Amino acid sequence: MTSSPLSSLYRPSLSLVTDLYQLTMAYGYWQQGLQDRESVFHLYFRKAPFQGGYAVAAGLALAVDWLENLRFSDDDLAYLGSLRGSKGGVLFPTEFLDYLRDLKFTCDVDAVAEGTVIFGNEPIMRIQGPLLQAQLLETALLTLVNFQTLITTKSARIREAAGPADQILEFGLRRAQGFDGGLGASRAAYLGGADATSNVLAGQLYGIPVKGTHAHSWVMAFGDERAAFAAYAKAFPDDSVFLVDTYDTLEGVRLAIDVAREMRAAGHELGGIRLDSGDLAYLSIQARALLDEAGFPKVRIVASNDLEENLITSLKQQGARIDTWGVGTQLVTAYNQAALGGVYKLAALRKADDSGWDFTIKLSEQVAKTSIPGILQVRRYLDDHGHPRADMLYNTAAPLPDRLTLVDPLDATRRRPVRPEAEFVELLEPIFRRGQRVKDLPTLAESRAHAQRQVQSLDPGIRRFLNPHTYPVGLELTLHDYRTELILQHRPQKPA
Amino acid sequence: MTSSPLSSLYRPSLSLVTDLYQLTMAYGYWQQGLQDRESVFHLYFRKAPFQGGYAVAAGLALAVDWLENLRFSDDDLAYLGSLRGSKGGVLFPTEFLDYLRDLKFTCDVDAVAEGTVIFGNEPIMRIQGPLLQAQLLETALLTLVNFQTLITTKSARIREAAGPADQILEFGLRRAQGFDGGLGASRAAYLGGADATSNVLAGQLYGIPVKGTHAHSWVMAFGDERAAFAAYAKAFPDDSVFLVDTYDTLEGVRLAIDVAREMRAAGHELGGIRLDSGDLAYLSIQARALLDEAGFPKVRIVASNDLEENLITSLKQQGARIDTWGVGTQLVTAYNQAALGGVYKLAALRKADDSGWDFTIKLSEQVAKTSIPGILQVRRYLDDHGHPRADMLYNTAAPLPDRLTLVDPLDATRRRPVRPEAEFVELLEPIFRRGQRVKDLPTLAESRAHAQRQVQSLDPGIRRFLNPHTYPVGLELTLHDYRTELILQHRPQKPA
Repeated sequence: MTSSPLSSLYRPSLSLVTDLYQLTMAYGYWQQGLQDRESVFHLYFRKAPFQGGYAVAAGLALAVDWLENLRFSDDDLAYLGSLRGSKGGVLFPTEFLDYLRDLKFTCDVDAVAEGTVIFGNEPIMRIQGPLLQAQLLETALLTLVNFQTLITTKSARIREAAGPADQILEFGLRRAQGFDGGLGASRAAYLGGADATSNVLAGQLYGIPVKGTHAHSWVMAFGDERAAFAAYAKAFPDDSVFLVDTYDTLEGVRLAIDVAREMRAAGHELGGIRLDSGDLAYLSIQARALLDEAGFPKVRIVASNDLEENLITSLKQQGARIDTWGVGTQLVTAYNQAALGGVYKLAALRKADDSGWDFTIKLSEQVAKTSIPGILQVRRYLDDHGHPRADMLYNTAAPLPDRLTLVDPLDATRRRPVRPEAEFVELLEPIFRRGQRVKDLPTLAESRAHAQRQVQSLDPGIRRFLNPHTYPVGLELTLHDYRTELILQHRPQKPA
Repeated sequence: MTSSPLSSLYRPSLSLVTDLYQLTMAYGYWQQGLQDRESVFHLYFRKAPFQGGYAVAAGLALAVDWLENLRFSDDDLAYLGSLRGSKGGVLFPTEFLDYLRDLKFTCDVDAVAEGTVIFGNEPIMRIQGPLLQAQLLETALLTLVNFQTLITTKSARIREAAGPADQILEFGLRRAQGFDGGLGASRAAYLGGADATSNVLAGQLYGIPVKGTHAHSWVMAFGDERAAFAAYAKAFPDDSVFLVDTYDTLEGVRLAIDVAREMRAAGHELGGIRLDSGDLAYLSIQARALLDEAGFPKVRIVASNDLEENLITSLKQQGARIDTWGVGTQLVTAYNQAALGGVYKLAALRKADDSGWDFTIKLSEQVAKTSIPGILQVRRYLDDHGHPRADMLYNTAAPLPDRLTLVDPLDATRRRPVRPEAEFVELLEPIFRRGQRVKDLPTLAESRAHAQRQVQSLDPGIRRFLNPHTYPVGLELTLHDYRTELILQHRPQKPA
């Protein structure tokens, strides 16, 4: 187990995990003398994934690891120096590579804690610092936060479907998108609520409990199912789960019971059986009955086969007797929505004469895709139980009025005043100041517990899978008015 | 650039990139004295991805790198030694860990070359060797081959849609599934037909050409679009592509033309403009007209925004004037099917008395999911142009009859005789013998060229996206008959 979740896995320098345009822009800013102009970027997504009502923020620990190791190695610089333009000249001159060699990370970073529930348009990270540096971070931060947030959210949904008592095992490595796709997915699956993983490296690096049974090939190697079970029980007398569907599932259950009786006679108990195909509702009910009749009510029934939250919900509604859910492909790739569309947008730039900020905006044909200017904070108002009731985005670089009003960013006529006495928390917490860490991060297990509490604190209507209730997220009224003004300023007023 | 595509990125030992059950089974085999029993496993998928007619095999170079570095480090063994069972005892005894410490890879591996087109049920890899070892390879080989084959196939489809003349740029890193999800995707995208990537690390490690423009934030930082373009042109006078849609796309094109005129006056030419939102058909036609009228017929039009093969086909049908396709999320995550369901099945096991082979089968309720016994080879019959016309799976460990007949594995009444004089190639080539490499692998660029030729050699009906023609893949008749016999033997004959 390591506290450096990426650098322990990867080679020392990962500073080239970026898009080339971050480096061409960096060169351009340097050439223009803009490299140190103070800037503010926000990392956020626009819509929660899976047509769901919420997301669970994740990826911060990986991002911190990456940021703390950010430097250009000689190899990195040699590669950049080798790049040629279309006319055959170097893309980057030596003076600029020397600048990169000496570059030190000096940004401020504020971020939402891993495991906190979060909604569309809310910054998960805010980066403030020299323009060249802050821009350079974009790609890696997006890759890390997008994927971790996506899978953590998927896992939280699967936990919602399974309920708090059932076991969830993640075993998707073989279908994952690369080694690190699998490793990162195992981490996020655990963070979002899975109990264990089959991924041994994830166990070693992240301290996640590892679990496993045996494959069909184990049974095939013995030819005889009963002999295969007995051999496995000999190897793991107190930790056996038998996969019973290699030839015929219910016959497999009967043979498992035979072996379980022998195990009991020797002082051991069979842990479980696993169903990996067929009608899981029917088979689990039949298997439970066979096991119970034979005196094995505590033998768990593990099920797997392309499971995800909707299928688990349906199996539960059908009365399936499954107590452990083995979830693979659907979880580790977020199969029904394989990417979170997180973006990283410039929102403020110090004026050239240092007299204050210029707030910046990216327009779009759709108002939903127009960015939000300012140096934003997310204030979450809580009800009497300490549960979230509404979130307000506001510009920390402008004075807040005495009376606060939230404006729906998608419908400016939907407004709600804030009760002055309402309790709140602020979600973006200082992580780096001038490049130095100012906050210790919780352990993965602590973040996992936080995630469970966070999701449970949401209204069930927001947690449901089909047409969830929309959690209220509003722009503070003066921010909304300012943004509208900026849009009108930048949008060409074409005659009708 | 490196010839060790994984180990250069990762820490030295990646032997724990596996499912725990591979190790529990390994222990079980060792305990039973079955560790050295010779076995044969096949790695294959059942159905081509994306409802397509073919896949492009990939991942072999990564698999070879992993296999050549397979050994358990002291850290790995210390971690495995720390695992506890439910009663608190060690999961793996010291003697077994010592066995793992001394374990050397001694398998034979045969594989399909990267870039070769391949179809359902055809082994992409065949592993022959000691049961414990061959089993232990399953998870990592599946992870590597599944993901590489998936993305390479997606990329080949995007190349099919774009046609041979257009440029395809892959720039999906920010939405990829982890750092290695992005790196592996860049590799596979290039292999399948993309021309370049934005991923700088993929450029450094794999020698893929890297390309990039600038982001919206570049324009926002200058506030003024014209000033932003001029500054970028100053930095890269011969390598500029301007992103024109930050505020208003066609106004952006006009400003780009203004700057292009200044560039030309100074002896430089604008490379292209990029459209990243809005109606790409309409905007590209308008932009082309503006550029052409202004005397810039060679300025390329780059388009991006959730592009994939169907959208590219549709844009082409609408007459869109796009010559460079920027493809991100949809390609690097294979968004519409984020995993390939490759499996790894035991197919033969040396008899205990060493008197020959037992061929093994995994049944399923669906015949399509029942495995194929034997030590398989894929023979591809060619037409007079050397193009594939039909593939035959046969058991190399059984004599081939003089007259060959192919049997459709999904419909045993669909048979076709093989003309005795038909030319053929055999797809599985020796890669390792007794753990030693016996074949040099082609470079990535060579595999890419091979992939292009392979896909082009398929009938257009097989390449089309909607309801493609099914390429004929048959079991050799004696293999088919033997498999049927095994199924009947293993399937319980329940009275009706």
